[in-house]
Amino acid sequence: MTGFFKVKSLGDVLGMTRLFSPVGMEELHTLDAFSRVLAKDLVAGENLPGFRRSCMDGYAVNAASTFGASESGPAWLSIKGTIAMGDIPDFELARGEAARISTGGMLPAGADAVVMVEHTEAIDEQSIEIYKSVAPLQHVIDVTEDFAKGQTVIEKGRLMRPQEIGLAAGLGHTRIWTYKVPRVGIISTGDEVIPVDKSPEPGKIRDINSYSLSALVTQAGGEPVRYGIVKDDPDALKSVCKKALAHTDMVLLSGGSSVGTRDYTVEVLSNLPDTEILVHGISVSPGKPTILARSGHTPMWGLPGQVVSAMVVFQVVVTAFLHRLRGLSRPVLQVKTSARLSRNLASSQGRRDFIRVVLEEDGRDLVARPILGKSGLIRTMVQADGLLEIGEHVEGLEKGSMVDIILLK
Amino acid sequence: MTGFFKVKSLGDVLGMTRLFSPVGMEELHTLDAFSRVLAKDLVAGENLPGFRRSCMDGYAVNAASTFGASESGPAWLSIKGTIAMGDIPDFELARGEAARISTGGMLPAGADAVVMVEHTEAIDEQSIEIYKSVAPLQHVIDVTEDFAKGQTVIEKGRLMRPQEIGLAAGLGHTRIWTYKVPRVGIISTGDEVIPVDKSPEPGKIRDINSYSLSALVTQAGGEPVRYGIVKDDPDALKSVCKKALAHTDMVLLSGGSSVGTRDYTVEVLSNLPDTEILVHGISVSPGKPTILARSGHTPMWGLPGQVVSAMVVFQVVVTAFLHRLRGLSRPVLQVKTSARLSRNLASSQGRRDFIRVVLEEDGRDLVARPILGKSGLIRTMVQADGLLEIGEHVEGLEKGSMVDIILLK
Repeated sequence: MTGFFKVKSLGDVLGMTRLFSPVGMEELHTLDAFSRVLAKDLVAGENLPGFRRSCMDGYAVNAASTFGASESGPAWLSIKGTIAMGDIPDFELARGEAARISTGGMLPAGADAVVMVEHTEAIDEQSIEIYKSVAPLQHVIDVTEDFAKGQTVIEKGRLMRPQEIGLAAGLGHTRIWTYKVPRVGIISTGDEVIPVDKSPEPGKIRDINSYSLSALVTQAGGEPVRYGIVKDDPDALKSVCKKALAHTDMVLLSGGSSVGTRDYTVEVLSNLPDTEILVHGISVSPGKPTILARSGHTPMWGLPGQVVSAMVVFQVVVTAFLHRLRGLSRPVLQVKTSARLSRNLASSQGRRDFIRVVLEEDGRDLVARPILGKSGLIRTMVQADGLLEIGEHVEGLEKGSMVDIILLK
Repeated sequence: MTGFFKVKSLGDVLGMTRLFSPVGMEELHTLDAFSRVLAKDLVAGENLPGFRRSCMDGYAVNAASTFGASESGPAWLSIKGTIAMGDIPDFELARGEAARISTGGMLPAGADAVVMVEHTEAIDEQSIEIYKSVAPLQHVIDVTEDFAKGQTVIEKGRLMRPQEIGLAAGLGHTRIWTYKVPRVGIISTGDEVIPVDKSPEPGKIRDINSYSLSALVTQAGGEPVRYGIVKDDPDALKSVCKKALAHTDMVLLSGGSSVGTRDYTVEVLSNLPDTEILVHGISVSPGKPTILARSGHTPMWGLPGQVVSAMVVFQVVVTAFLHRLRGLSRPVLQVKTSARLSRNLASSQGRRDFIRVVLEEDGRDLVARPILGKSGLIRTMVQADGLLEIGEHVEGLEKGSMVDIILLK
């Protein structure tokens, strides 16, 4: 039972993400790269916007022409022309001259600022009065103000959110290099587990974990590959594990909730070529009987069989490894929301607890109401809006205290 | 300019989601239903787990056999047999009898609780001592404890998260009814806008909005349908709008950032059959010049042309309408995280401000550092981790105060 020396803290396990590397890369159409991770620095091949652009509807001017202008002493400017959207102005502005311009329009040579239309009055077709001075570059975006040619605009390892997609498009990148989507093999084990489309006799239970874990893998940015249900038979499990290792980037075994099954899972993993058990037990609840092994370059997990435990371990541990395989260079900010605790909660020291909670609105605060059900009840996860984390060194939490909740989206 | 009477508060605009209805429904394989919205109540066709199931490795007993057991006065029980995983026990337990059982195993008739193996000692092959009493139903999940036959287990209108997918699987539903994915038409307008794969001459700018809005639509659970770029020409715009209205469930026009273009957008929308302008301006910043119309049963948006304004309005307004079309019965909890403000911030009363912020870790707190850039600079959105919302009735926020941040994922 060398395994018992491998019970680790959550922090130690999360540190092991460094033992694994991102999967390969591929070039994609920029629109298909949404929610992927950038695999090569994106460099600006040109300036953005590339010309001096107006941010307002109004008049392009040389700022110096407006200095000192006020309601009581307006500046008088003559109108040189009108700039149509998308056009290159075919005239230049001197001091004392202005040109009609719309938001997004290009400033003519000689202009370095825009006066908002609200601060002007048209005298006649050829002239305006200006009631407020502008500073140079006011109400304009300058040639390189968004990005300058040659500048790294998105570093590799960054998540491509809608704004990063927009920026790549703005710089003319129709294709970009991203990391591939990690393939995650999912294997259910246990003589009591039957396929979802079968009717269970007493004593049997449908394969919930393959379904909920598939969805979790998708949600965390991976591609689930299901290998079905394996009976409690070491040879069969070894053979399916080898198959999954050959075709995926991470493997999740689930089930094996009984001590006997856990022992043979460890035995099977230990006997795979170039495989080492890294973790045998994590000091979290639920989810303590979790196994992590490294097989070649591939992380393999033995997740608890209890549905809630498997889901919680996926959320708080496995996701970080999947993010590593996706190539994310910094952890995704964990989405936490603040809520007021509805009751006292006890907790064991030396263990990190994740308590399922319902969030309810109560006037101004969000209230977190703990769901204290068994970790075999999927109902408790369906009711839950989030998880309340209680640290290793906390004995318990008091009713009314403000707590951080990890949202279950 | 009747439009000026239609400037609305954010709350009023969000209330208008009620004017629109969810799109049609379709039956999907349960695994494909992840992140869809349930369109018909899901009812349990059977009990879950359907048998009395052990939550622990140990011994199945009749709880009364253990009453009064302690370290100093253990209860002595004779072993009737061993229950293999997934099997129906072929024996019954009387008082004073126990059966070896693993987590997930089915309790034999006559047993109503499980004693953890840690609280027992084997005397010989046929008998054990028990050092701790158990209550009836302790360490077991009873026949209907997760769900009882006939019970509604997931109500229509709920998002299918990984746990809802798992529950549907556990109850044997391989196919479920969900709302369809709303199709969202995206139209860019403006003489200055050119396709992303073209090289812009001075005065022109690539079509960033089609790309970032496509990604936002996908992120919010819709399917983007791009209709390309329309020049500043009312007839051309009207014709593309009609096409988009015929094939999609919501239409986004973007661009038209100048007053002139906005006016003709309103004119075009007003002249479509059975179309009414609902909102002409929202008291938010950035994003004030936003137009919302109803054309038949379809919401149509005139979004600001500035890239940042368009994205912010999508996040804080349009998403709620897309959720309505997806069939969500309650708003998705907006993901907010608490952070300490790095500087004083001024704000105008009567307007809701959304300030882009960078989040940095600083010992124990998260620090929100405002990015005060022009709303034409996509850079500011690429730097931003979130949006800080400042309410209509708040004059400003003080450095060091704790604020809620909407995360930009």
